[in-house]
Amino acid sequence: MTTTEDECRPAGSVAPPRATAERVRDTQGLLSREVDCWVATADPVTGAPHLVPLSFVWDGSSILLATGERSIAGRGLASGTGVRIGLGATRDVVMVDGSVEVIPTGELDPAEADRFAERTGFDPRQTGSTYLFFRVVPTRIQAWREENELRGRDVLVAGRWVHAED
Amino acid sequence: MTTTEDECRPAGSVAPPRATAERVRDTQGLLSREVDCWVATADPVTGAPHLVPLSFVWDGSSILLATGERSIAGRGLASGTGVRIGLGATRDVVMVDGSVEVIPTGELDPAEADRFAERTGFDPRQTGSTYLFFRVVPTRIQAWREENELRGRDVLVAGRWVHAED
Repeated sequence: MTTTEDECRPAGSVAPPRATAERVRDTQGLLSREVDCWVATADPVTGAPHLVPLSFVWDGSSILLATGERSIAGRGLASGTGVRIGLGATRDVVMVDGSVEVIPTGELDPAEADRFAERTGFDPRQTGSTYLFFRVVPTRIQAWREENELRGRDVLVAGRWVHAED
Repeated sequence: MTTTEDECRPAGSVAPPRATAERVRDTQGLLSREVDCWVATADPVTGAPHLVPLSFVWDGSSILLATGERSIAGRGLASGTGVRIGLGATRDVVMVDGSVEVIPTGELDPAEADRFAERTGFDPRQTGSTYLFFRVVPTRIQAWREENELRGRDVLVAGRWVHAED
């Protein structure tokens, strides 16, 4: 295995790297299909990292999350330091860096809130005002399986899907 | 589903919550069995969160990681802001908060480095000095499956396994 900037994992018997178009399709499929993701935030005061699995809904251009306003994740999401989200398996990942919009539960479009409740089985509006919605707009999305896919892992850059083959 | 501090996920048909002793056993089993984990760090300068899957080895009391000294994860791990690591599935998680010791590849006990290479299929010593080992000593470990397991999710507190039943 060659050295890489970010990775240290065994190669094993690995499939050939996917082309960009295939990775974009796989990424969009995973975002549409999955219900849970790993949400990494940072504490704006202590600088400590946080990580928690949360359910989400993908609407084709943003990831909608909800969590407690006073939870560590909620405070990190609202802090302006951004978010990094992981989806999928550790050897078939989609990593999303994004900006975060905070939306009080009563201010989200009711149809969208209904869709969130239907998909995740939980309606944050029923918590009174203890929960918030968070809309994550991806600025960068990366997709890779094994070390041989680290090259060309950008599938969305500056908010736009990459269309060229790598 | 009741509201919780940290979570927003559907309940579905959920097994009864595990007792603490069972969670401790499951957690130790997962730490011994798994090869990859999700590593969340924070950038000490910008405060931005980072997340990346990395391979690891559990020796019974610490998690050994390796990554590039100049990678975002490597710089975050070395920064002193701590680390939070997620293992397992999003509905059967083990979350580890820990302190981080930085170990140059040439300074790790060779037997331990051999074990890392054997288990992960990758030997960071072969990268010259571009990689570092990081030993994460857990200060807190939590284990939960669904919302009904959020109560009693602490299985290791202040570096010690919890032995009492919840």
